[in-house]
Amino acid sequence: MSAAGTGTMLVVSAHAGDFVWRAAGAIASATQRGDRAVIVCLTYGERGESASQWLAGKTLDEIKGMRRAEAEAAAAALGAEIEFLDAGDYPLLESAELTDRLVEVYRRIVPTVVLTHPLSDPYNGDHPAAARMAIQARILAQAIGYPGPGEPLGAPPVFFFEPHQPEQSDFKPNVLLDITAAFPAKEAAMRCLPAQQHMWDYYSDLAVRRGVQVRRNAGPNLGLSSDTKGEAFMRYYPQVTDVLE
Amino acid sequence: MSAAGTGTMLVVSAHAGDFVWRAAGAIASATQRGDRAVIVCLTYGERGESASQWLAGKTLDEIKGMRRAEAEAAAAALGAEIEFLDAGDYPLLESAELTDRLVEVYRRIVPTVVLTHPLSDPYNGDHPAAARMAIQARILAQAIGYPGPGEPLGAPPVFFFEPHQPEQSDFKPNVLLDITAAFPAKEAAMRCLPAQQHMWDYYSDLAVRRGVQVRRNAGPNLGLSSDTKGEAFMRYYPQVTDVLE
Amino acid sequence: MSAAGTGTMLVVSAHAGDFVWRAAGAIASATQRGDRAVIVCLTYGERGESASQWLAGKTLDEIKGMRRAEAEAAAAALGAEIEFLDAGDYPLLESAELTDRLVEVYRRIVPTVVLTHPLSDPYNGDHPAAARMAIQARILAQAIGYPGPGEPLGAPPVFFFEPHQPEQSDFKPNVLLDITAAFPAKEAAMRCLPAQQHMWDYYSDLAVRRGVQVRRNAGPNLGLSSDTKGEAFMRYYPQVTDVLE
Amino acid sequence: MSAAGTGTMLVVSAHAGDFVWRAAGAIASATQRGDRAVIVCLTYGERGESASQWLAGKTLDEIKGMRRAEAEAAAAALGAEIEFLDAGDYPLLESAELTDRLVEVYRRIVPTVVLTHPLSDPYNGDHPAAARMAIQARILAQAIGYPGPGEPLGAPPVFFFEPHQPEQSDFKPNVLLDITAAFPAKEAAMRCLPAQQHMWDYYSDLAVRRGVQVRRNAGPNLGLSSDTKGEAFMRYYPQVTDVLE
Amino acid sequence: MSAAGTGTMLVVSAHAGDFVWRAAGAIASATQRGDRAVIVCLTYGERGESASQWLAGKTLDEIKGMRRAEAEAAAAALGAEIEFLDAGDYPLLESAELTDRLVEVYRRIVPTVVLTHPLSDPYNGDHPAAARMAIQARILAQAIGYPGPGEPLGAPPVFFFEPHQPEQSDFKPNVLLDITAAFPAKEAAMRCLPAQQHMWDYYSDLAVRRGVQVRRNAGPNLGLSSDTKGEAFMRYYPQVTDVLE
Amino acid sequence: MSAAGTGTMLVVSAHAGDFVWRAAGAIASATQRGDRAVIVCLTYGERGESASQWLAGKTLDEIKGMRRAEAEAAAAALGAEIEFLDAGDYPLLESAELTDRLVEVYRRIVPTVVLTHPLSDPYNGDHPAAARMAIQARILAQAIGYPGPGEPLGAPPVFFFEPHQPEQSDFKPNVLLDITAAFPAKEAAMRCLPAQQHMWDYYSDLAVRRGVQVRRNAGPNLGLSSDTKGEAFMRYYPQVTDVLE
Repeated sequence: MSAAGTGTMLVVSAHAGDFVWRAAGAIASATQRGDRAVIVCLTYGERGESASQWLAGKTLDEIKGMRRAEAEAAAAALGAEIEFLDAGDYPLLESAELTDRLVEVYRRIVPTVVLTHPLSDPYNGDHPAAARMAIQARILAQAIGYPGPGEPLGAPPVFFFEPHQPEQSDFKPNVLLDITAAFPAKEAAMRCLPAQQHMWDYYSDLAVRRGVQVRRNAGPNLGLSSDTKGEAFMRYYPQVTDVLE
Repeated sequence: MSAAGTGTMLVVSAHAGDFVWRAAGAIASATQRGDRAVIVCLTYGERGESASQWLAGKTLDEIKGMRRAEAEAAAAALGAEIEFLDAGDYPLLESAELTDRLVEVYRRIVPTVVLTHPLSDPYNGDHPAAARMAIQARILAQAIGYPGPGEPLGAPPVFFFEPHQPEQSDFKPNVLLDITAAFPAKEAAMRCLPAQQHMWDYYSDLAVRRGVQVRRNAGPNLGLSSDTKGEAFMRYYPQVTDVLE
Repeated sequence: MSAAGTGTMLVVSAHAGDFVWRAAGAIASATQRGDRAVIVCLTYGERGESASQWLAGKTLDEIKGMRRAEAEAAAAALGAEIEFLDAGDYPLLESAELTDRLVEVYRRIVPTVVLTHPLSDPYNGDHPAAARMAIQARILAQAIGYPGPGEPLGAPPVFFFEPHQPEQSDFKPNVLLDITAAFPAKEAAMRCLPAQQHMWDYYSDLAVRRGVQVRRNAGPNLGLSSDTKGEAFMRYYPQVTDVLE
Repeated sequence: MSAAGTGTMLVVSAHAGDFVWRAAGAIASATQRGDRAVIVCLTYGERGESASQWLAGKTLDEIKGMRRAEAEAAAAALGAEIEFLDAGDYPLLESAELTDRLVEVYRRIVPTVVLTHPLSDPYNGDHPAAARMAIQARILAQAIGYPGPGEPLGAPPVFFFEPHQPEQSDFKPNVLLDITAAFPAKEAAMRCLPAQQHMWDYYSDLAVRRGVQVRRNAGPNLGLSSDTKGEAFMRYYPQVTDVLE
Repeated sequence: MSAAGTGTMLVVSAHAGDFVWRAAGAIASATQRGDRAVIVCLTYGERGESASQWLAGKTLDEIKGMRRAEAEAAAAALGAEIEFLDAGDYPLLESAELTDRLVEVYRRIVPTVVLTHPLSDPYNGDHPAAARMAIQARILAQAIGYPGPGEPLGAPPVFFFEPHQPEQSDFKPNVLLDITAAFPAKEAAMRCLPAQQHMWDYYSDLAVRRGVQVRRNAGPNLGLSSDTKGEAFMRYYPQVTDVLE
Repeated sequence: MSAAGTGTMLVVSAHAGDFVWRAAGAIASATQRGDRAVIVCLTYGERGESASQWLAGKTLDEIKGMRRAEAEAAAAALGAEIEFLDAGDYPLLESAELTDRLVEVYRRIVPTVVLTHPLSDPYNGDHPAAARMAIQARILAQAIGYPGPGEPLGAPPVFFFEPHQPEQSDFKPNVLLDITAAFPAKEAAMRCLPAQQHMWDYYSDLAVRRGVQVRRNAGPNLGLSSDTKGEAFMRYYPQVTDVLE
């Protein structure tokens, strides 16, 4: 286990709200132990995930501004930095140019851990597109021959956070994260997104559900409280370790 | 990460030699950090994995005795305890009785981590049979209502060690263990099995190969030596953790 | 769609409580439209799923009796019949004899739809064992040459109900059942199991979660209420239909 | 089950002939019950599926015209409407522009059910490309923020029709459609494609084969005739229903 | 490629008729090139696959006798030897004893190639049971320490023949066998089973269908006739070769 | 088996070095039996696989030149022809134009067998991109309507060669090639790449490892030497054959 306070978490989020529902517990856990966390939103989710604003008759620019302000507030509640690439959503189009901007981020931030969407989601094409670019950029950033400022990247582990309908997205968690201590921060971050108030309960319930699985898989020996909250992740590359536990 | 010296590793091995080739590095790593390690051999491998002794005209009992002595020496070289259930190999038959004997082991040893074979192996029916019983016994040992001495078990993680032909056995490693420091002990254990001398090189080469993957997946930042040795494992249940790394 | 009131649902449950948590909505939906529902519990769950009774110092026979009474009350709350085969749990052992008893049930009940556990569950060996026997018995009951009273069975569809940790059990729902109208009956059935009170909330929350998915997959056109409750299932054999919808 | 005559089926076909061989039974079944059916051909199949015309020395424009006329005749035989996007085949190139044209179709037609190719086909790259765009367009059409005329789409179910070599394309049917009544219309449609006469028998035999499976999976109780004809489909999203059958 | 006339094919068939429908082309191909072929029927299929005889009021012994005579005639038509183990079907029960009888067969016959059922079949439990025993016996026969007459076996390749509903049984053919020359012998063998006359056409059509795939996958260069007939197989172990073709 | 000396092998390699490590044995085996072999390198691997040259301060053009010279020497050592498309690596971008250039190669070379990368590689995006284009070009080249010189292609089999981390890339070999006789040529080819000297041992060890599997899967009957060397491949399309062996 790396020393607390020495790590940097990079979160690649397709839309401005994704990181809140799916990874806020992991982000707050990192910042609470002193690590740095940087969130990169490829888009504001202005077309695909802002239904209530469109119904309210807002313009595209107004919606972008609202989503940006919400995401900044949520990031602040988590103690994280946030950047926006404004690449346009629904559809988020894969391109060498956008991938190159992510390479720049990798080389500048030098993450020790990366979080992004899973590679499959039958309900949303932007999420897998974001994941493919996040993985491709990580590979490119590792190559000394790839042009651009900064040093070649190491091999930070990559974790996929939970999609909305996990079974349909072939999301089989192999890491259950105990976010009990970080959960109040996640709640605070969720409340920064008032237009999606129906999601607050949904993702609080999910944290309880994943918390039950944390306890089931940890065993009673660990004496975890019945208030345990959890988030589920899929590790993409093999774990490297010097102890089996 | 649990404190060194507080853990107990249980290794369920179908035949007397399996634990040496496939998990000796993990076992020595555990004992070197002060943990306890207990190996349970369901059989001596007397029929299926003792070809040279049969060719030399040994009797069944002689072969069992030789295999037992070898395995005891290898366990000693690893700093581990060893038990033999002598259930008969080729075929190793699954039964409620043998599973019950494993439940007794679980409740007596109270492992904090379990190693066994993977659930699929097209070349060897005994290996999956051992794995199925090891998993079933772990489940039964957790139930307060299951009769027998000892307290109900917690939920120790289970790792599958590497089969002889990994791709054919659907063995996709999700844990790469750095066994560099433990490798001399693995070498010593392998040399306790002189009848399978052709395996020494084979499994030393494999340790190099898995060591290359340890370095590739850890990244250059970790400054691992080019002498890094590795063993590959599949974690069966999700990892429970409070930090993503 | 078959005419309401002409069907018979058979539920093969490994333990006395399984059918309540996992399929009570489907059962009550069937009985509320006038279909017959018959639940067969292979065991009482006396060893594996009665921790609180064991902690309270009850004897095996007392526990069996309590579990039977609870299950009978739950079945009554659902308008269903219930039978107990008392085959012994933890482990539930597969056998030709127990399978034959299930064949007898199939030929006597003549189900038009069958519900049982999924074929994989890394946390519980009894559930897949029950599923394998339920499927095997259905196949045997179809053969005119298989001895026993009653006529050969047709080909009733088989649905797997949801395991406790669906992703780990390779449970990918392909049927989402709207149980909104049946949910009060499910709640009443759950309250018949007071020793597992912590499960009431857990499975009520799950009904909400699956209800959200019902609405997502049905589309807004159907005008489903935000109170929609759901249960998830895996259809094992292909659906036969004369309309795609 | 929706009331007959209230539905609209949208068929997204990579080439002008695909819908005939693979889905004509489903289309005729829909129109025979009074539903509307609209076929959208992304290309005429002018390069990849017109070998005999090329051998006969026809020009590209002549071939397009012939394929269009054939497809129009086949659609008429099925009682369906047909549109052509003329996007160019072999290769059919995925693009945001072509996907946008499909969004326009979705919002104009407002389908209640969608048919298209499966996502994998090692023998034909155009088929999966068509499927990816059909699915992506359905997602985009659901978003109120996606620009364009018409109302946001609901969540119509999607079915993949059968590829030429189903096992190689990971096509595992989970819906078997009884097309017995619609089969004469399918035969008439096939005869509108005289250049591919060798396919008439091939797909008539396939209808018999799938018909046998319809009967096997329905069970003898349903009294299906030995003349039953079938088509096989893969449902992509979970079925939403209020009765298990 | 081994020299013609030096090989021995072993076919392990769950019931007396399976080898005819699923592998008669492969068997006749082998005998026509001078190889030896030995069919071992684990059962007569007396309960599970003799519906018409049961409907005709025959006794169990009469049915066994009829099935045996039919199978002997079919084997003769293919130029193959046949043996019956009469282990009882529906269900065919796996046992160490029956597996041991298969080991005896392997050591006596010394096959150079093995054919049996695939490992999965949701419609028939006897087929996978036969396959599991055929594979386990092959492994045991390889071990010098396994008691019994004869020399240890080599490593003959194993091929699974086609189940009745291939996609549902996860049967993805990786070998397409051209049986054009052997097809008249297969037809003769099928006609030895008059009670299943409806299968003659079904499996003749399947030979045409697989023949089309033979031609598609071989390419036009090979100049295969449009009368090409085929059978599909799954190779279980990797092919060993010294030329890629 | 085709007559020696009548075949043409086409190898589509993403970078200039890939064909050496992964397929040199197969290439030399082909040329040693008199077949023609043509290697097409889509890129020189100038950015992604030339770390030591970048560290040495070489320019992009210098690196391309060095890689080209090395690859030409390696091809010569294997008796193969080589072409370079210089499409640019890291990333290798898929495009219709580059695919069209491969179609031109297929129609000019008329391969009887094709080798390329597997379709999945979590560590390298260029490899799957090369594979997708190689497969797509093969399909396009088969269509008479696809414009360009040359005759339409037949259906040459496609084999994927081994990626660096096979299990992580879902690489399950179904063909093990005996390259014992060709191994000295492979060694000579490897020595043409002095900048990657650490790979010489790595891939020599791999040849031993795959050689052990050649012997295991061939069986002792074949009398293969303990010096057997091997390479592993995945056949993408079904094997077409007239003998099971």
